[in-house]
Amino acid sequence: MTVKPTSFEPALPPVLFEQDQTNPYLAKAIELREIFAVDAVERDQQGGRPSDQIRRLKESGLVNLLIPREFGGEGQPYSTALRIVREFAKVDGSLAHLFGYHFSPIQNAVTSGRDERSAAILRRSAEGRWFWGNTTNSFSKSLFGRKVEGGVLLNGDRPFASGSHVADYLMVAWEDEKTNARRFAYIPANRPGITIADDWDGIGQRQTGSGRVFYKDVRVRDDEILSERPKDPSELLIPQQQQSVLLNVFVGSAQGALNAARDYTVTTSRPWIYSGVERHSDDPWIKRQYGELWTKVQAATALADRAAAAMDSAYAKGGALTAQERGATAIAVASANVLAGNVALEVTSEIFEVMGARSAVRPLGFDRFWRNVRIHTLHNPAEYKTRNVGAWFLTGDYPEPGIFQ
Amino acid sequence: MTVKPTSFEPALPPVLFEQDQTNPYLAKAIELREIFAVDAVERDQQGGRPSDQIRRLKESGLVNLLIPREFGGEGQPYSTALRIVREFAKVDGSLAHLFGYHFSPIQNAVTSGRDERSAAILRRSAEGRWFWGNTTNSFSKSLFGRKVEGGVLLNGDRPFASGSHVADYLMVAWEDEKTNARRFAYIPANRPGITIADDWDGIGQRQTGSGRVFYKDVRVRDDEILSERPKDPSELLIPQQQQSVLLNVFVGSAQGALNAARDYTVTTSRPWIYSGVERHSDDPWIKRQYGELWTKVQAATALADRAAAAMDSAYAKGGALTAQERGATAIAVASANVLAGNVALEVTSEIFEVMGARSAVRPLGFDRFWRNVRIHTLHNPAEYKTRNVGAWFLTGDYPEPGIFQ
Amino acid sequence: MTVKPTSFEPALPPVLFEQDQTNPYLAKAIELREIFAVDAVERDQQGGRPSDQIRRLKESGLVNLLIPREFGGEGQPYSTALRIVREFAKVDGSLAHLFGYHFSPIQNAVTSGRDERSAAILRRSAEGRWFWGNTTNSFSKSLFGRKVEGGVLLNGDRPFASGSHVADYLMVAWEDEKTNARRFAYIPANRPGITIADDWDGIGQRQTGSGRVFYKDVRVRDDEILSERPKDPSELLIPQQQQSVLLNVFVGSAQGALNAARDYTVTTSRPWIYSGVERHSDDPWIKRQYGELWTKVQAATALADRAAAAMDSAYAKGGALTAQERGATAIAVASANVLAGNVALEVTSEIFEVMGARSAVRPLGFDRFWRNVRIHTLHNPAEYKTRNVGAWFLTGDYPEPGIFQ
Amino acid sequence: MTVKPTSFEPALPPVLFEQDQTNPYLAKAIELREIFAVDAVERDQQGGRPSDQIRRLKESGLVNLLIPREFGGEGQPYSTALRIVREFAKVDGSLAHLFGYHFSPIQNAVTSGRDERSAAILRRSAEGRWFWGNTTNSFSKSLFGRKVEGGVLLNGDRPFASGSHVADYLMVAWEDEKTNARRFAYIPANRPGITIADDWDGIGQRQTGSGRVFYKDVRVRDDEILSERPKDPSELLIPQQQQSVLLNVFVGSAQGALNAARDYTVTTSRPWIYSGVERHSDDPWIKRQYGELWTKVQAATALADRAAAAMDSAYAKGGALTAQERGATAIAVASANVLAGNVALEVTSEIFEVMGARSAVRPLGFDRFWRNVRIHTLHNPAEYKTRNVGAWFLTGDYPEPGIFQ
Repeated sequence: MTVKPTSFEPALPPVLFEQDQTNPYLAKAIELREIFAVDAVERDQQGGRPSDQIRRLKESGLVNLLIPREFGGEGQPYSTALRIVREFAKVDGSLAHLFGYHFSPIQNAVTSGRDERSAAILRRSAEGRWFWGNTTNSFSKSLFGRKVEGGVLLNGDRPFASGSHVADYLMVAWEDEKTNARRFAYIPANRPGITIADDWDGIGQRQTGSGRVFYKDVRVRDDEILSERPKDPSELLIPQQQQSVLLNVFVGSAQGALNAARDYTVTTSRPWIYSGVERHSDDPWIKRQYGELWTKVQAATALADRAAAAMDSAYAKGGALTAQERGATAIAVASANVLAGNVALEVTSEIFEVMGARSAVRPLGFDRFWRNVRIHTLHNPAEYKTRNVGAWFLTGDYPEPGIFQ
Repeated sequence: MTVKPTSFEPALPPVLFEQDQTNPYLAKAIELREIFAVDAVERDQQGGRPSDQIRRLKESGLVNLLIPREFGGEGQPYSTALRIVREFAKVDGSLAHLFGYHFSPIQNAVTSGRDERSAAILRRSAEGRWFWGNTTNSFSKSLFGRKVEGGVLLNGDRPFASGSHVADYLMVAWEDEKTNARRFAYIPANRPGITIADDWDGIGQRQTGSGRVFYKDVRVRDDEILSERPKDPSELLIPQQQQSVLLNVFVGSAQGALNAARDYTVTTSRPWIYSGVERHSDDPWIKRQYGELWTKVQAATALADRAAAAMDSAYAKGGALTAQERGATAIAVASANVLAGNVALEVTSEIFEVMGARSAVRPLGFDRFWRNVRIHTLHNPAEYKTRNVGAWFLTGDYPEPGIFQ
Repeated sequence: MTVKPTSFEPALPPVLFEQDQTNPYLAKAIELREIFAVDAVERDQQGGRPSDQIRRLKESGLVNLLIPREFGGEGQPYSTALRIVREFAKVDGSLAHLFGYHFSPIQNAVTSGRDERSAAILRRSAEGRWFWGNTTNSFSKSLFGRKVEGGVLLNGDRPFASGSHVADYLMVAWEDEKTNARRFAYIPANRPGITIADDWDGIGQRQTGSGRVFYKDVRVRDDEILSERPKDPSELLIPQQQQSVLLNVFVGSAQGALNAARDYTVTTSRPWIYSGVERHSDDPWIKRQYGELWTKVQAATALADRAAAAMDSAYAKGGALTAQERGATAIAVASANVLAGNVALEVTSEIFEVMGARSAVRPLGFDRFWRNVRIHTLHNPAEYKTRNVGAWFLTGDYPEPGIFQ
Repeated sequence: MTVKPTSFEPALPPVLFEQDQTNPYLAKAIELREIFAVDAVERDQQGGRPSDQIRRLKESGLVNLLIPREFGGEGQPYSTALRIVREFAKVDGSLAHLFGYHFSPIQNAVTSGRDERSAAILRRSAEGRWFWGNTTNSFSKSLFGRKVEGGVLLNGDRPFASGSHVADYLMVAWEDEKTNARRFAYIPANRPGITIADDWDGIGQRQTGSGRVFYKDVRVRDDEILSERPKDPSELLIPQQQQSVLLNVFVGSAQGALNAARDYTVTTSRPWIYSGVERHSDDPWIKRQYGELWTKVQAATALADRAAAAMDSAYAKGGALTAQERGATAIAVASANVLAGNVALEVTSEIFEVMGARSAVRPLGFDRFWRNVRIHTLHNPAEYKTRNVGAWFLTGDYPEPGIFQ
């Protein structure tokens, strides 16, 4: 059915979106998306590890997308990664999440002043096409480090360690058992003493491996530990990074759900017995519902695009980023995140109404969109992001930089 | 209160909106907006003619904004006019409407192949800084023309003749009394036989003069009548022009209402007796409400910007505009219009909750925002625009060009 | 058009509502409603005093509805008064409000232990068919009493003195200028020194006279002052009384707006040009919109009925009302109030969409419904009532009795 | 936590709901509900047959609830069955559905003029405490009967045969292979030739067994076939019966989800890090959200109660039911159904926000509420029920009795 719109940008004359169509990274991502789509429903049921898909991501080179060219990467702007997150989320929210979060340690290294240690890790990451996971969840105080000769010994565990189950390398955070100071390191995922429980059993995002990782006498060398430096302003964008990945998972899920529903409606749904029309898509009800949902998704997409542009601008400022610019970026990302979450929840639930009763069976897997979005929107509450936006609008005060804002 | 956000773009780092801040036409419009604001509440109560404000518009030269430079105008893109409509609507929906619709006959002349007659009218309009009104409402078949020597004699009337009460020149449409063919002409508003009833009594948009105009043996010369030509593709954008003006009235009204409410909340509202806070703006409820409303307005603004860019692109194509490009523009405008209307209705009603009981008195005039939006959103039903968007998304078929789509 | 549903109860087999149809007070109220309807639009524009309508209310005897039979009244349950408030609000929110609030001093006297002073005032009120107003607004500390021989001298003013402009008798509250103690009295409205400014200029509820009353050396006799007694539990229902009146104004306004819109849609609206139907009411869009709005109004009506039954039960308990029963009544009323307000705001705004552009003119007065509801819902914020309901659901704790809860 | 509200009626003084508390059938159902709750999450994951639960239902005698006493049943009104459906749905939507639909063949026999054949089947059903399933889906034309000596031979299959997998007896419908006339019979579920595929794999309602049943040369005796009689008016209530069961599944699911979420919030949820409160339930956000959701559920419950009362009234009329009364009942049920579905969808999705991220894991099973409601609301579209309500409100015309209205 090639005549039908296949993306969420066609409402504008093509000229405005030319860059998208010629972006080779996006083109490669779309190829991968089609491959991921083949068994996305099945893998959602299974949970576990999308090992084959991660292998393809590495082979494609997209894992190096944000590593600067000087270190052997592709040197693309952050917004391109987000755009690809959105593309993957159209069929597979887990891979979208994993791909987006993979860049957190990388972006951290890129923005952390580019010292020698960061440069080395980026170079090795690019060369090895590493895939990154994290075990840095900041809620739990459950992983502690003890100073030993030449390094630190880690014991304890971390929950919500997304990506750890498919990672080559991990970013790990712990508290010093004496000082309680929080420190970070980059270490290989197969370092002795690490056990990845792979015990994630969420209602959605089922292949993100967001379960627990256990550390038993895991040795971290001093040269793997990140230096404690005064914060560079753009490092303060870590919460915005996370919210950006999430919001593009939401937008992509909404787009993907709506596209999938449309295809089902057009090819499979039967007109209602009292409709008086021959094709379900001729029912004024069906047209209106799709029109409403599409318009909402379009709005969420527009704010997501603005937020992504804000992120690029902010990163381009680097160390010169002012508090006001950081604040403006935080507002752009927070508001786009909240809208995207709300729209995605609505779309992923309402698609069933326009597809009809036969669409709601497990083998078709349409419910994975709602389950993915539902669990992912809980990461940090929309209420507090919304309050921050409102407080800024009322007073001009930006949210205090913090772990979730 | 200069520290507070004064526009709806500050969520993005300034660099992204530099062009706005340096656009001299927008700057001039903002100056006028402040003047219009002074007695906007009073004029809303009175209805009638905003004669002084129209005079200022003419003096400012903004009336010539879209007339090409070769004819003595400013040669600006259509989006600049829409941006100014939005700016005026922040304080005065009637002037926003009048200013936006003033350009319909002009844009019609600009896009109509630039024949000699069109060139002449544009040249004279620019020189005289004419303000245009229309008596072309297409619903009523109530104005008829009879062929006479050297022209046509008009008899009958037209409802919804917005702008006629302050116009120098009118675009007039009638049906030929024999053939029923619809024809158009440009004529001076003071042509003998024309009576402008100025009998508009809407619940909002009270100075738009959208009442009746009576024609009694009004003579139109042959050289004033527009030739019947095959439609140029960009002429088919007339419904999108109208919807664009309306949607920017909605967006501007929502922005203006929210700004006005914010100022009242911060300066005047008292915290609720059970709130436990000292300032009303510290109540989590108030922060959230403003955050929600701002985000929705931001989304409507983003789609409005996309739709305006689509209009510019479409006009830039001129005669080369394809049916598909025309269709894509129609979808962009229709969806932006529907979203803007819904958001504006919500915002203009909910501001009262965050201002409190004392804000709902006539002298403060906050209710004019809702009344303006409420009446203006009825111009053509959101339902049908939404169905068109949905039908396109389902089938790829663009709406058939027509009087309202 | 007698075949169409004329009330909001016809969805149930008639047998369930027989009592309504035979209630003579309701029948009388419906007669009056039809009289009030005749010039309701005109009086909404004018504001000021509905003197003729108040006269009719007195003549009808409905002003004595809640006064016990032993004192010469009709001895009806509180729910009957609320049912009549709802009926009046279908056409005139101001009269509905005035009628409902008229009973506050009466109900206060009824529930205040029936001492001799209360008995006397009830007897005289019934005999004289007094209409009551109030000047007891508790927010402003602006009216003070000074002890003098045989009574108190009042000086100052009160805002929001609804009903004072048409009252025979006033309930007045002041602070003692020395002790700051709050005291109450019943006094005639024409007592020398009282000036009723009649300066109310709200966006709605325009004949409620909710403006200021000035007191200049107004003498109150000792025997007019209410005794200070320990609170009877049912006196704690004053906030619920007020919220009950308001919520029935909301429900009645929603019902009245929807009925009025329906009549306009059926008799006057034209089908949309792209609808393909002959009657506007045959458009699936129009059917759905009315179906949605009716269902919402029905839900608000059902909770209003439950809340009214709860009030009757609570009053029937009198002094034996337990804290838990008072709390359960408060939750029933608060939740019904919030739902009614939200539904009424939605209905009174959305009716315009199903009537079309020509319905939004001032002479038709459809906008008065929204203006009435919008201002009236601000009396005390839905947010706090909702929080109280939620806190009770979470913890079982009822709201602390207080001025607004 | 016994102090917390345990039902959705406590907002009213207890006296109003006394009958509920003393209804022995409801009390028995609540006992069963607690038993069903123990492994409801586990059974939701498994799907398949709730054999043990059906056995308990039979032992309890509740399966005979609606069979008239003269035939050995309990002779209770239809509303009691619906009330129990609601109670079961608080923990297990599948059992609620099975229990409600079990009564369709029974109610059909009760209302079908009580001929000898109906009397016999009721008597045997009561005596055997039969559990009923159905294979009567009317969409598919896939089961055909051929006249043979003394009966009919059935071949083909039926989809959506809810309850067939646990039934003692089936109501079966087929088309005559020659005349295409639709006929019905009551037959034992273990009749030779019947294969119950038990292949249901819906996203929710996972133990309803709504899969396919295959018929291979299944013999139906003439004396098992229902006679073709002129329709009794109350037989026309079959669509309302089905919609009533569904709407009480929705209401019960919403109530159960909200209760479960409340318990989790109070016992397990942690306050958000920026909240400044010690208990999650002290966050104004959490109070408001619960207050809003509770109020909506309360409204849905109120309309459900009205609709159930309407059903009782209609059945009480029996053969004397007028077309108008049937129509009024249809409107009451349709509107209650639509509201309940919308509220249940909203509640079952939003509970996660007030519980937090850790609540969204499969072992807790909170997502089953949304999945149950989502699939069940698709049975017949809300759009068409809403249009019927609107059409009636506009014109007074009740929906034409039909398979879904």
